[in-house]
Amino acid sequence: MRMVDLIEKKKCGLELTSDEISFIIKGIMSGEIPDYQMSAFLMAVCFQGMTDQEATSLTFAMRDSGKILDLSSVPGKKIDKHSSGGVGDKTTLVLAPIIASLDVPVSKMSGRGLGFTGGTIDKLACIHPFSSPDSMDDYVNMIREHKIAISEQTGDLAPADGILYALRDATDTVQSIPLIASSIMSKKLASGCDGVVLDVTCGSGAFMTNLEDASHLAKLMITIGKSCGKSMAAVITSMEEPLGYAIGNILEVKEAIMALHGQGPDDLMEVVYKLGSYMLLLADRTDNLSDARKLMEEQVNNGKAYAKFREWVVLQGDASAGKLVDMPASFPRAERIDVITAEEDGYIKLIDAKALGTAVMMLGGGRKEKGDSIDETAGIVLHAKVADYVKKGDPLLEVHWNPKDGREEAFQLIRKAFVMSKEKTEPVKLILGEFT
Amino acid sequence: MRMVDLIEKKKCGLELTSDEISFIIKGIMSGEIPDYQMSAFLMAVCFQGMTDQEATSLTFAMRDSGKILDLSSVPGKKIDKHSSGGVGDKTTLVLAPIIASLDVPVSKMSGRGLGFTGGTIDKLACIHPFSSPDSMDDYVNMIREHKIAISEQTGDLAPADGILYALRDATDTVQSIPLIASSIMSKKLASGCDGVVLDVTCGSGAFMTNLEDASHLAKLMITIGKSCGKSMAAVITSMEEPLGYAIGNILEVKEAIMALHGQGPDDLMEVVYKLGSYMLLLADRTDNLSDARKLMEEQVNNGKAYAKFREWVVLQGDASAGKLVDMPASFPRAERIDVITAEEDGYIKLIDAKALGTAVMMLGGGRKEKGDSIDETAGIVLHAKVADYVKKGDPLLEVHWNPKDGREEAFQLIRKAFVMSKEKTEPVKLILGEFT
Repeated sequence: MRMVDLIEKKKCGLELTSDEISFIIKGIMSGEIPDYQMSAFLMAVCFQGMTDQEATSLTFAMRDSGKILDLSSVPGKKIDKHSSGGVGDKTTLVLAPIIASLDVPVSKMSGRGLGFTGGTIDKLACIHPFSSPDSMDDYVNMIREHKIAISEQTGDLAPADGILYALRDATDTVQSIPLIASSIMSKKLASGCDGVVLDVTCGSGAFMTNLEDASHLAKLMITIGKSCGKSMAAVITSMEEPLGYAIGNILEVKEAIMALHGQGPDDLMEVVYKLGSYMLLLADRTDNLSDARKLMEEQVNNGKAYAKFREWVVLQGDASAGKLVDMPASFPRAERIDVITAEEDGYIKLIDAKALGTAVMMLGGGRKEKGDSIDETAGIVLHAKVADYVKKGDPLLEVHWNPKDGREEAFQLIRKAFVMSKEKTEPVKLILGEFT
Repeated sequence: MRMVDLIEKKKCGLELTSDEISFIIKGIMSGEIPDYQMSAFLMAVCFQGMTDQEATSLTFAMRDSGKILDLSSVPGKKIDKHSSGGVGDKTTLVLAPIIASLDVPVSKMSGRGLGFTGGTIDKLACIHPFSSPDSMDDYVNMIREHKIAISEQTGDLAPADGILYALRDATDTVQSIPLIASSIMSKKLASGCDGVVLDVTCGSGAFMTNLEDASHLAKLMITIGKSCGKSMAAVITSMEEPLGYAIGNILEVKEAIMALHGQGPDDLMEVVYKLGSYMLLLADRTDNLSDARKLMEEQVNNGKAYAKFREWVVLQGDASAGKLVDMPASFPRAERIDVITAEEDGYIKLIDAKALGTAVMMLGGGRKEKGDSIDETAGIVLHAKVADYVKKGDPLLEVHWNPKDGREEAFQLIRKAFVMSKEKTEPVKLILGEFT
């Protein structure tokens, strides 16, 4: 088998066999296939796509490129949750402790944030001290004993995906549904879970900007997961405006704490309950979605969800982390808070989530490049959301920032992020699709 | 400027500026742009194409990546001839001495053969001893004094093209008309000629298999050449059957010698006279094609063309090379000559040039990979061409070969190369288009 022939096959739109795809991934891992051949192949995939069978083969080959985490010592079905990322998306911080408080184990492998979207690990890392488990054994023990743990994605699991992702990032070959599906699912399958609930974000603040692509991605990941016996569900959630009111690491943690105290924004809680219901269903904790939702609401109202969150941050930090989350006002703050106000009366028609996510990144709240440091205090707090009516001079949002060069560009983006209308506008439809 | 953004631009089908293309080629030369980004870009070009302006910019950037040969010390207009390659194509061996014998300087940079097509340098190298000029100064001196010289393409001229070509070869990105045009024209422009006559071969035995692509390639190369003031012409010639009767290095040299003695096959001579007429026209030696043709025929008939050929091989070899071409029977021969005969009476409908070119390569007469050694004696001599009538048992061709493992596959190709018909068939139309 020669890689150049496989490139030709893909370029001509023909289907590769699982042996051929396995040959490619093994060649990439061994170094026998040079990255310049791989990147040409990836570009051909961007144009020609992949069949479901090819994407499944690619997922399996990447999963098999490294270790597979053994969670068998943890009793019960382990259901992972994955979000394709968005702006203001602090869902995991709220969802994971609710589920764990119901004695359903939550094993969460997570990446660092990049670009206009944040990462759960970065958010948790604001609750000093925070650390990933020292070893995979520690991680599994935490889940067994506390039903909850988060770990930074390790290079041991699906290492081929890490190599491919770096190459895709440098060659503009990220945007391909089968490549995205294989990347996500190879890591999920390697993380040893029994099922996955996928939050496929869709809209201007997500990687999938239209419903057709988001549905295709959701269905493909379900197909891949089911083909190796995993329990699967996917929810398509709108990212046409930021989720909740806070964007930026500490600001989002504080919003998540409020949510666990029963004071979360409606849209955030809707997503949390929707995804959580599927997690409880797939874990066989309930047999219908409405019971699942009631169980979750109860855990928030009776304080058990927050108690599990506190236990979690102490577990992966120390006692001071617990005190910090008990007193959210004691989190560090940015030096300056500027309020942007409405220039006219009207209804809010659009809030450009990507622009705000990008602005927060520019203010230091996110990473432009891998390895950039993060200003945990930087961010935005919205005062109004789509369909709200505001009068001239009313606050639209506050910007938390620490003066440094190059902040002006961020403010330019922020000022243009709100689109107003004289006519009444509709709230964003949040749940765009559900697949099992 | 970031390469990843330029890849994205091309992937989306947008036109790159000449500054952007220049940035890419400089980055490839300096090593700042890694080859994995370049190959992804090249694959995107295969899908999205390039505008004429982009292909022109790419050509100029590659030309400017190295030295440009200075032929100004040679009096007169220097017209290069380039063929996109074919099976049995010994045109240059016949054409160059005819033109030089008319006192029009012929400067010929040539590559080695690869795959199913041969290279002029490989053919000349059969006339032992043969060598490329020691230096570019020597080369220019030869042209000035003898009006003829050939040199192997040096790495000094358009080195970016060499880098790109190696990458394209390994990533199935060779087949792109703007990339092919830029590759050819960057070398021609760097070789310092005043004009180029292009022989764009078209058909089953060429890289362009249909007339539309061949015409596109021809017109694009003319556009590029004219945009920097070169005199340009292109002829599209058919490669639906091998050119002439001989395929294989020594066999083709012998056929070329016969042609210079006035005993060349009709199709070969037609191509030689057609291309040569344009060379004389572009060199201002005549002002019309029919006068040009008469001049050339005269040089063959009066022996001056052969004399120039003899002078050339002595110039780039020694006196023994002259004796060798005077006595073609003294060239080495293959150990075995097998004759393939017709299995039925009928007219020849098709002769698969690519299959025969590939078979000769498999018999050792060509290179599968760069750097492979060549069996100069291996080859095929046709006894019949398309539209000829043969009876069962009549010879179709003879195979010259030296027994070695793996020859059987070549014979399988050869046996299937002839398609017969009971009905009368038409000869191949040789000249498919002419552009200036």
